[in-house]
Amino acid sequence: MIKIGVVDTTFSRVDMAKYAIEVIEENLPEAEIIRYTVPGIKDIPVAARRLLIDEGCDAVITLGWVGPGQVDKYSYLAMSVGLIMLQIMTGKHVIDVTVHEDEAGDLDDLYNIAVDRARKHALNLVMLVKYGREALTQYAGKGLRQGRPDEGPIKE
Amino acid sequence: MIKIGVVDTTFSRVDMAKYAIEVIEENLPEAEIIRYTVPGIKDIPVAARRLLIDEGCDAVITLGWVGPGQVDKYSYLAMSVGLIMLQIMTGKHVIDVTVHEDEAGDLDDLYNIAVDRARKHALNLVMLVKYGREALTQYAGKGLRQGRPDEGPIKE
Amino acid sequence: MIKIGVVDTTFSRVDMAKYAIEVIEENLPEAEIIRYTVPGIKDIPVAARRLLIDEGCDAVITLGWVGPGQVDKYSYLAMSVGLIMLQIMTGKHVIDVTVHEDEAGDLDDLYNIAVDRARKHALNLVMLVKYGREALTQYAGKGLRQGRPDEGPIKE
Amino acid sequence: MIKIGVVDTTFSRVDMAKYAIEVIEENLPEAEIIRYTVPGIKDIPVAARRLLIDEGCDAVITLGWVGPGQVDKYSYLAMSVGLIMLQIMTGKHVIDVTVHEDEAGDLDDLYNIAVDRARKHALNLVMLVKYGREALTQYAGKGLRQGRPDEGPIKE
Amino acid sequence: MIKIGVVDTTFSRVDMAKYAIEVIEENLPEAEIIRYTVPGIKDIPVAARRLLIDEGCDAVITLGWVGPGQVDKYSYLAMSVGLIMLQIMTGKHVIDVTVHEDEAGDLDDLYNIAVDRARKHALNLVMLVKYGREALTQYAGKGLRQGRPDEGPIKE
Repeated sequence: MIKIGVVDTTFSRVDMAKYAIEVIEENLPEAEIIRYTVPGIKDIPVAARRLLIDEGCDAVITLGWVGPGQVDKYSYLAMSVGLIMLQIMTGKHVIDVTVHEDEAGDLDDLYNIAVDRARKHALNLVMLVKYGREALTQYAGKGLRQGRPDEGPIKE
Repeated sequence: MIKIGVVDTTFSRVDMAKYAIEVIEENLPEAEIIRYTVPGIKDIPVAARRLLIDEGCDAVITLGWVGPGQVDKYSYLAMSVGLIMLQIMTGKHVIDVTVHEDEAGDLDDLYNIAVDRARKHALNLVMLVKYGREALTQYAGKGLRQGRPDEGPIKE
Repeated sequence: MIKIGVVDTTFSRVDMAKYAIEVIEENLPEAEIIRYTVPGIKDIPVAARRLLIDEGCDAVITLGWVGPGQVDKYSYLAMSVGLIMLQIMTGKHVIDVTVHEDEAGDLDDLYNIAVDRARKHALNLVMLVKYGREALTQYAGKGLRQGRPDEGPIKE
Repeated sequence: MIKIGVVDTTFSRVDMAKYAIEVIEENLPEAEIIRYTVPGIKDIPVAARRLLIDEGCDAVITLGWVGPGQVDKYSYLAMSVGLIMLQIMTGKHVIDVTVHEDEAGDLDDLYNIAVDRARKHALNLVMLVKYGREALTQYAGKGLRQGRPDEGPIKE
Repeated sequence: MIKIGVVDTTFSRVDMAKYAIEVIEENLPEAEIIRYTVPGIKDIPVAARRLLIDEGCDAVITLGWVGPGQVDKYSYLAMSVGLIMLQIMTGKHVIDVTVHEDEAGDLDDLYNIAVDRARKHALNLVMLVKYGREALTQYAGKGLRQGRPDEGPIKE
């Protein structure tokens, strides 16, 4: 059976997991979804690790929210290094959805970015789990974006 | 028996461990608390490691204090990478409470941030140890903050 | 049989893999090429890991595209640490082709940088796989550049 | 028998090891001290590793000196990550004494900082080796500083 | 038999390996020198790894050249973390000679820095390999510099 882990935080100001789970349930209905909620982004890697190794998940999607300060960005960097090392150790995908509080001018924008990014990356995860390493090759170099409109390829 | 590790530093200007321990004792009275005090934040990961592996702790809370300089922030980054790698290796939570000396305008504020952050994260730790991966899911996306008032979700 | 992995992203705005694959096919026709497309640069290390370990590739070329923001640069740093650790673990080359969206004044330039860098690094990879550790020694200290004209040695 | 490693550099402008060794000899006379001198801070982690693993040291004190440039600070960060990972791997303390060339206005100050920091951290090391994890707990949250006067707790 | 690895790049604008090899041949004539040339600094760690583990080198000297941009400095940081982790894993020295393109006012200076740094660090490597952990202790705290004149100790 396919198991997908979903990690999110209480720090986040949007319940992104709800949108990610909707997409997974619709596109990968045979999967069992296992959720893990932690306080903040620095707690995400251990939750992902427990889902991948202890719970046997095939892949994990993580939904993080990062403050605007320099120190918050260092926390983001530390989390990213951790998630990448975890993926190297396990050979399994951890698709990381991160929203930075300072990437939008107002809260409505930020909300929409968060929902769109969670949804699109959940679909990326489903594609990789379902169809493997060439599932996204048709979109290679196409300038896809999550949370914003696609930029498209420089030359068609 | 449940064992909880508490790591703090002599560099800190607030005895945050006292408040963390109070919360743990009140909410997880059956736990044995094992304390480890080190000079500064770069010494925290090895202390957490010894508590998790040598002392068999189920989880650890660390209480760090970071100076205002750029170099202090790099030390914070190094500590964060270390704590995240340790959690990935052990599969156990290390809840990190960090106070940055430059995050408040005056010392009273800083003191209150430190106490509030230590208390709230100690409760996070208890929740995770006691009730597991969905203990905090009711607060997912709720914009909780430690050391400051909650920001709340962007949309209810 | 020689197996070469090619990892690219849907975030990229140029299909760099096409150019890299052309060069590999022309200069290492006996190689099997295995492609893996991921959403963005932070997903590259796990794809490279799977190609090197699970698919048995002898070497991998990765083709990443990095946004202009500070946070994008931290993602680049995390990816770079991951790819370097992966190479240390496996003892195999992962030649990393990265294009930064802010390294050119206009999109035509950026396109040309991407194509040139992908081609030249694909040839570097072929040389290292085919002829080993002294294949590039004739060019040591020669100020070669990928994506831009060579700078040449300071003194001939 | 207790073995303490001391790592220092030829880059440093103060012979900090001399002061650290004096403190160790006075306060832990039963210890064998093993010294290792390397060129610069990026060579410190491997020396500490050899002392901890190959020579069987119980703990190590490292004495580094960092230049004023941004690149020097990145070297400091890399060294810090390395020392923290080494401590996590071995479960042994590596007390790091670092002096930054730009942290004082004149050379006399810098000299005094270096000597004071080396001495105080040597004593920290002795305390941890001799009396264990609660040796410093009496000073937890007391705002101790090395290289400068203690700042003290915010509230007594 | 003693084996010394030498890693350099085609990105460099000075053939630093030539000068490093001269020094090694003169001062450690019994050593076999094994050279490995890679495109740029991010390829250095895997080359050093292959020399240390696959070729059985006793130590390695690496000769890197770093561009002036912020992204180049992050690549330097990633390489540094990698080389430090490699040394921790193997217990062998990797003496890193890095020249930053922006550390000199003109190309002549830069050339001289590169040659001097390569030569002096090659000698450091020879000393450590030949005489071990106290070979450089006579210079501890003496403010030695590579690429520039020594600064000397603050107090004689």
